[in-house]
Amino acid sequence: MISPTTLSKIENIIGKKNLFTSQEDRICYAYDATNLFYLPDAVAIPGTAEEIDAIMQLANQEKFPVTPRGAGTGMTGGALAVNGGLVLVLTRLNRILEIDTENLIAVVEPGVITGDLQKEVEKIGLFYPPDPSSLKFSTMGGNVAECAGGARAVKYGVTKDYIIGLEVILPTSGIISTGVRTRKGVVGYDLTKLFVGSEGTLGIITRIILKLLPLPEARKTLLAIFDRLDTAMQTVSGIISARIIPAALEFMDQTAISCVEDYLPPGLPREAGALLLIEVDGRKEAVESEADTIYQLCKKMGARNIQTAGDESEAALLWQARRAVSPALFKLRPHKISEDIVVPRNRIAEMVSQAKTIGTENDLIVLCFGHAGDGNIHINIMIDREDRAEVNRAQRAKEQIFRAAVELGGTLSGEHGIGITKSPFLGLELNPLAVETMKKIKAALDPNNILNPGKVFPY
Amino acid sequence: MISPTTLSKIENIIGKKNLFTSQEDRICYAYDATNLFYLPDAVAIPGTAEEIDAIMQLANQEKFPVTPRGAGTGMTGGALAVNGGLVLVLTRLNRILEIDTENLIAVVEPGVITGDLQKEVEKIGLFYPPDPSSLKFSTMGGNVAECAGGARAVKYGVTKDYIIGLEVILPTSGIISTGVRTRKGVVGYDLTKLFVGSEGTLGIITRIILKLLPLPEARKTLLAIFDRLDTAMQTVSGIISARIIPAALEFMDQTAISCVEDYLPPGLPREAGALLLIEVDGRKEAVESEADTIYQLCKKMGARNIQTAGDESEAALLWQARRAVSPALFKLRPHKISEDIVVPRNRIAEMVSQAKTIGTENDLIVLCFGHAGDGNIHINIMIDREDRAEVNRAQRAKEQIFRAAVELGGTLSGEHGIGITKSPFLGLELNPLAVETMKKIKAALDPNNILNPGKVFPY
Repeated sequence: MISPTTLSKIENIIGKKNLFTSQEDRICYAYDATNLFYLPDAVAIPGTAEEIDAIMQLANQEKFPVTPRGAGTGMTGGALAVNGGLVLVLTRLNRILEIDTENLIAVVEPGVITGDLQKEVEKIGLFYPPDPSSLKFSTMGGNVAECAGGARAVKYGVTKDYIIGLEVILPTSGIISTGVRTRKGVVGYDLTKLFVGSEGTLGIITRIILKLLPLPEARKTLLAIFDRLDTAMQTVSGIISARIIPAALEFMDQTAISCVEDYLPPGLPREAGALLLIEVDGRKEAVESEADTIYQLCKKMGARNIQTAGDESEAALLWQARRAVSPALFKLRPHKISEDIVVPRNRIAEMVSQAKTIGTENDLIVLCFGHAGDGNIHINIMIDREDRAEVNRAQRAKEQIFRAAVELGGTLSGEHGIGITKSPFLGLELNPLAVETMKKIKAALDPNNILNPGKVFPY
Repeated sequence: MISPTTLSKIENIIGKKNLFTSQEDRICYAYDATNLFYLPDAVAIPGTAEEIDAIMQLANQEKFPVTPRGAGTGMTGGALAVNGGLVLVLTRLNRILEIDTENLIAVVEPGVITGDLQKEVEKIGLFYPPDPSSLKFSTMGGNVAECAGGARAVKYGVTKDYIIGLEVILPTSGIISTGVRTRKGVVGYDLTKLFVGSEGTLGIITRIILKLLPLPEARKTLLAIFDRLDTAMQTVSGIISARIIPAALEFMDQTAISCVEDYLPPGLPREAGALLLIEVDGRKEAVESEADTIYQLCKKMGARNIQTAGDESEAALLWQARRAVSPALFKLRPHKISEDIVVPRNRIAEMVSQAKTIGTENDLIVLCFGHAGDGNIHINIMIDREDRAEVNRAQRAKEQIFRAAVELGGTLSGEHGIGITKSPFLGLELNPLAVETMKKIKAALDPNNILNPGKVFPY
């Protein structure tokens, strides 16, 4: 519990109207996209890095936990105050400070919504590729803290590939700048990349320097339906072998297709084994030629149907099925456990098949979709949280899926992070000495364990 | 000094023939590309990670420094045993363990020569882009430790952008695996990126997992001569504004052009203000169209001469001038101080002009060339080391150049690292709290300060 004296000190730092202590207000910040619930003692919405710095000083004096939070769209509980204490919301730091069109660099505050930044830079012919599904709501700070990915990662990489510098408040207080605002820089340890993906446990990000690309001049989208998932995945391999890295290379399995067809009939063949959604972008001439190669390849591999979008609105129609999966699957069961394991690209069919078997054996509906291009599969276990037996079976299935992913040479998480929902399984992937090394870094930077305690590591 | 008892223990670990203690042998490992000289007490050339692990255990017991070393091509003294102790040479760990053509991943040992890896993967249509000038000699371990760059960084990024996992011996001993062998992964802190560029101070790299790309199917090279450097740099901006990111976008200033013309007359106009060497690669159709756009742009910007290579051998001819700079400049003076500062791309002309002025004011020959596409300028101060007054003037000029780079929003080092030659200047760029944070990480991982002491930080 944070004492009333301490609360009034926080109030002095950020102003009365930016500190929330009523139960109603605290409940609003007790959730994130995991749907888990941890009530914080108080919620602070500071307006400057200096205010955050002062709060961190106080937190170290009074020893209360601080959990940074963006829009709360995280999938693994990173923004939940699992030990109580203060939730520190960064949404007031929401300015795009600079878009440097000559050097292709932007400087933003953590509360900027990812999609808003993308729109702004695209208006002037620039491009910020990372595109997590939550981009209309999620903030840049959260994206950096979790190292968000997205469909375009196969060609363009993930958040960390674009972050070149940060301003960070350290867990023990103090403001540092990391990295550079140039395209290269190797001065000292790469603190920037250490903070990216550290899930708010090593520092509070208050400013982000990121690199941009020129907006590709052309784009072409194809949707191909296959009878069998393994044929679809052989097509994925074929595309890469043809030296084409598409800007998106998404798949849906049969359950996902059928489920979308119930929700939003776009005329998908319900019994099809897999759907591939493929997008190429770049120089106009290359896009035409690549799309043609992909079309021919899909045909050769026996795709039962191939649609090509001629313009943006046709492309949006093709994306509709893929975008509808997440809402559609709640028709199957009211809740889902959504995991984002990754396997080597050529093991996707095997992983999906194992996930299905694990589902069947545990009497659960399991459906798979995601980023075929980089092996990042979103495995959704559908449940009703009220059904305790089903929840228990799902927990067992989840662990079996993680084990299968690691055995196939993969990883527990491609873009959601570890947080609290995956921390019990960290040891499946990392050896104890690697975990100990990470904990040493945490202890060195946050000796009082103030910042987002209880995350990442299985304590 | 390492005691004879300790030396015999090292001998027991790696075998008599792999430990060198004679003065002649130690002298061979007392240099690197800085030409500075630090004689180690002994040189060990272990054959396995387990042997290195055992040496690190011993080093912590007996408290002797260990300096890892690849081919010794480093430009900032990273491989020099500045506190004596043991130089640990990794060249026997030189196997390419795996090239996974389906998942576009390779696994290599640190002693593999970068150029050899490139040749191997290119044979089968794959591509490892980072191309430091030393690639025919430098090792992958050294490239990772220093985060080597190269001409292709403008489009393809630097070493850290390709390293997805490592096996590392910790400073206190113990072997850990970091990262993944998939295209994505966010499990725990990004230790991989922390080790990359840590200059052998945080761990000894014994295995490297890296991602590959498909080899671009076509390439086109252009060489353009400009009367003025600033016009050349406006052309660089124009190329990027045309949404083209070339695979190389190199420049040479007038002194560099003239110096190459003395060395290897390719018929360059000695009085020209700047030369741009531009290479585009990718899908055939795009390459043709991009090369054409660039040609037109150079023409419009008043290039006095534009040559285009029709094939690989013509391209090699165009590269000849750029590749000849490093050997040619020793015609000017017998030694050089070579710095690799970076400024925002649109400040290159200003930085070069300031470097020239600093040269003139200190009565020194200064010449600039490098990577115009990413603002990474190789500034070479030509000296005769026997001339103490000149060396002192060069040291003063070097500091002035660093200050100018930082004032222009740049950085001390784009691809060479800090080592010992830049460590006195670290504070010009990093604030004290950032340096302290890095030192805390070093102390947490290497409490006895065994591994490559005296590097990076101004102690």
